[in-house]
Amino acid sequence: MNELELIQTLKERLPTNEGVIVGPGDDCAVLRAPDKGCYLLFKTDSVVEGIHFLPATDPYKVGRKALARCLSDIAAMGGIPTAALIAIALPAGFNPQYVISVYDGLCDLARKYDVAIAGGETSQSPGPIVITVSILGWVEPARCILRSTAKPGDAIFVTGELGGSILGKHLEFEPRVKEARWLVENFHIHAMIDLSDGLATDLKRILGASGVGAELLSDAIPISKAARERASSRALQTNAPTPQEETCGIMPNTPLAVALSEGEDYELLFTVPAKIAVQLLDAWKTKFPETRLSCIGKIIPERSVTIRDRYGRKPLSIDGYIHFA
Amino acid sequence: MNELELIQTLKERLPTNEGVIVGPGDDCAVLRAPDKGCYLLFKTDSVVEGIHFLPATDPYKVGRKALARCLSDIAAMGGIPTAALIAIALPAGFNPQYVISVYDGLCDLARKYDVAIAGGETSQSPGPIVITVSILGWVEPARCILRSTAKPGDAIFVTGELGGSILGKHLEFEPRVKEARWLVENFHIHAMIDLSDGLATDLKRILGASGVGAELLSDAIPISKAARERASSRALQTNAPTPQEETCGIMPNTPLAVALSEGEDYELLFTVPAKIAVQLLDAWKTKFPETRLSCIGKIIPERSVTIRDRYGRKPLSIDGYIHFA
Repeated sequence: MNELELIQTLKERLPTNEGVIVGPGDDCAVLRAPDKGCYLLFKTDSVVEGIHFLPATDPYKVGRKALARCLSDIAAMGGIPTAALIAIALPAGFNPQYVISVYDGLCDLARKYDVAIAGGETSQSPGPIVITVSILGWVEPARCILRSTAKPGDAIFVTGELGGSILGKHLEFEPRVKEARWLVENFHIHAMIDLSDGLATDLKRILGASGVGAELLSDAIPISKAARERASSRALQTNAPTPQEETCGIMPNTPLAVALSEGEDYELLFTVPAKIAVQLLDAWKTKFPETRLSCIGKIIPERSVTIRDRYGRKPLSIDGYIHFA
Repeated sequence: MNELELIQTLKERLPTNEGVIVGPGDDCAVLRAPDKGCYLLFKTDSVVEGIHFLPATDPYKVGRKALARCLSDIAAMGGIPTAALIAIALPAGFNPQYVISVYDGLCDLARKYDVAIAGGETSQSPGPIVITVSILGWVEPARCILRSTAKPGDAIFVTGELGGSILGKHLEFEPRVKEARWLVENFHIHAMIDLSDGLATDLKRILGASGVGAELLSDAIPISKAARERASSRALQTNAPTPQEETCGIMPNTPLAVALSEGEDYELLFTVPAKIAVQLLDAWKTKFPETRLSCIGKIIPERSVTIRDRYGRKPLSIDGYIHFA
């Protein structure tokens, strides 16, 4: 299969939608503008061989992950994804079937969320495979949720269960697009982010942007089965704590440490006025019975972070990574 | 300088514009939609160290080129660029000053065209530096110029002078944004493309998409000084023809061969109804006296390509690269 045949094969399988006026094959993709009054959402993100996936990783899952990360970012704004472009840098002598599988994973997920793949570029690379996805979406201004608008007194929620994503979830997670849309359509969400670098780090981003602090409840943090596995397999080793744990100051090798510090959860972290917290939890259980939603603490006016457990409340630093006292 | 300090330094110099609601720092950039009735233009493109630039290349010019290539694509649709995102994959232990210079080149060009840099992502790379720019623009539907709408009888025009870009122009070219906008605002352009892979190859793209052929005038092809330099330095060598020349079947080492076959000219190639060709040429000379505009041939209904010189007309194949008889 030569380059032209590969491009033709890839083009034939790209999903489109009614927003696409001109898809792949011209100098740019041409797209319909969003509905009147809507904002555009625009994001780019790369996955790199050797960093975000390994040479032996199933290429279908690699492609899926590359798009899913971008979908998760659109979700975190309360938006609807509409069109994406793919740029792949490939070493000379690459296997065409590998690239087709990357596109298959990417296109299947795009179809599921009615996202058009409006174009793709292939570059030569003397190094690892780099896949960069650019995505466009839209959101009504009143439903566009930033990181910077958390308010003192807000309840802090997180979807799903945290930690241990490296054991498999990072290649198979479902971006929370539907859940986020349901949230912004039905509730007054104050601030939202998707968890890519770990709860401790990403919470800090909301707090920093909003100029507030937080009080977390240790027992409320939803710890995944994978986080417990990671913790016990690590506890058997004589290894030093990971750099994340080191900087977090968390007792290493505990499930809580893993849930707070590990990245790639791709869950939603958001804040809402406390008075609607119970109503939101009830409605969520009916709407998404299979996905856990946890209220893990509250926003406070002081720019500090504390975590409360059975032994009391410990002060945490808000500068840099979160430091446990 | 640590990573956080670098990101802060980069963020401070990113240009913005009135289309940006929320710039770098949230999950996505939030942008105003284009004016009512306009189409969106969406494009992504990568430059890779070792392929599109060398480790010793001035990083300011590397950043400038990464954006200029995307601006050239927006121009080729007749559009106005509005916002771009940058994704850079960097090896461990990179030099922060290098990255700052890349951004400086990119941001200076963005400012010149009032393009906002609405976000940037940095990834780790175990290999070469890869810079991927994603760009958004807009265009009025009546001014959106495709590759697929050339018509028999059209005059074929090209801006500037061709060939030898590798001697320097590929790092310093001015994307033809202003020229393209003037063209679509004042004339009925039928088809347009920017020259990235060489006149022979890119003309073939217009012809293939439009289902037509072309007759070129050998003497009308605007050959750059750099193309002549390339031709004479090559003629002194005993080297075989380049792969492009081999497949083009052009007499190797001639300035014409270089002008037809070498890539990265980033000039506009477009077709217009023959009856407005003279008027367009006259108006161009007044508007852009420093930039050459050449009528290099005409579109014909038969799907063949011929080139005419003082010795007569030679048939050229339209399949694959252009083959001279």
